[in-house]
Amino acid sequence: MKQQGILIIISGFAGVGKGTLVKRLVQKYERYALSISMTTRLPRPGEEDGREYFFVTKEKFEEQIAQQGLIEYASYCGNYYGTPRAYVEEQMAQGKDIILEIEIQGAMKVKERFPNAVLVYVLPPSAAELEMRLRGRATETEEKIKERLRRAAAESEGLEKYDYVIVNDDLDLCEQELHGILCAAHFTPKQNVSFIKELRNELKKFGKEDEKA
Amino acid sequence: MKQQGILIIISGFAGVGKGTLVKRLVQKYERYALSISMTTRLPRPGEEDGREYFFVTKEKFEEQIAQQGLIEYASYCGNYYGTPRAYVEEQMAQGKDIILEIEIQGAMKVKERFPNAVLVYVLPPSAAELEMRLRGRATETEEKIKERLRRAAAESEGLEKYDYVIVNDDLDLCEQELHGILCAAHFTPKQNVSFIKELRNELKKFGKEDEKA
Repeated sequence: MKQQGILIIISGFAGVGKGTLVKRLVQKYERYALSISMTTRLPRPGEEDGREYFFVTKEKFEEQIAQQGLIEYASYCGNYYGTPRAYVEEQMAQGKDIILEIEIQGAMKVKERFPNAVLVYVLPPSAAELEMRLRGRATETEEKIKERLRRAAAESEGLEKYDYVIVNDDLDLCEQELHGILCAAHFTPKQNVSFIKELRNELKKFGKEDEKA
Repeated sequence: MKQQGILIIISGFAGVGKGTLVKRLVQKYERYALSISMTTRLPRPGEEDGREYFFVTKEKFEEQIAQQGLIEYASYCGNYYGTPRAYVEEQMAQGKDIILEIEIQGAMKVKERFPNAVLVYVLPPSAAELEMRLRGRATETEEKIKERLRRAAAESEGLEKYDYVIVNDDLDLCEQELHGILCAAHFTPKQNVSFIKELRNELKKFGKEDEKA
């Protein structure tokens, strides 16, 4: 069966470890490419422009919106986040599975434009564990942590819109499960439209031969 | 995440090798159980009552229909085929993934009653290959072979109703892909309703704490 690259959306509450998961997949398997988002938020210690994000000003971001250079964008905790179009389309054309690590609003917008996109939500084992991880990160103020937890509560209402949900408890296991899911996602009818069409056309000949007989 | 057994439907054109695939899965992995269908067709050489099928008379079959002892049944090439209810429900209750090897009409009926069922269609690499396998089987008359090929052409119109399609070219690879798909199928939101509900309830507390503050 001919396989084309698929568009993969990974979402998850802040602090759930989705960034680590995605980084691992991209490092381990050649089939994956990672989309780099554009944001107006400030870099965290250790983050690099063009690696974690393209860090831009609000003015620059709004310029990109106006030029339709983003396939989706949203505002989250007072900052813009968006997905530059060019790189995503380039990777898909090359047959790579391109991963977008974006939040739920953006995911829904991408799903509208790319109905074949596969949406995976990464969950914590429990709400208490999520809170612990957010506090453990120590890069956020108490107010930010509370905001992120409230946000998680709100986001959890949209989980049924995702194709898959996985729990990040054991990182190795979760990585393995995620890779398994993304492999399986290649086997849906909508990812194999041309193979199905071809097979159907071949099979029709049997019906026709029989009519003649 | 708590995992319950899922109901799996495997369909495929006659001659595609789905029976072999399913037998392998059940032998290799404890998590799978195989539903045994009831049929009015005659046993093929080597087939045993209670192993490949429950072979019954038309009268006995219609008695089961009347008693609602079948979760689906259909007529195919002049014979009845159906799935006895009791065993399926028992296995699911025990947390096993129960596999039904049934054709498309039956699959749609089961899907109605069990909306969480996962439907996989096994395809041949090509129509020519399917024809070759049917002729190689040598248990069918020419007329039966032609009937099965026409039937395949008709069935191929319903492929989009399945969740997954796989190609049985290399049997080992196909078995591996099928197992991968069935593992991934455990990670859909509808298979994890109770975990999601629990997590949501926990998360709601953060919102409420904040309102009080």
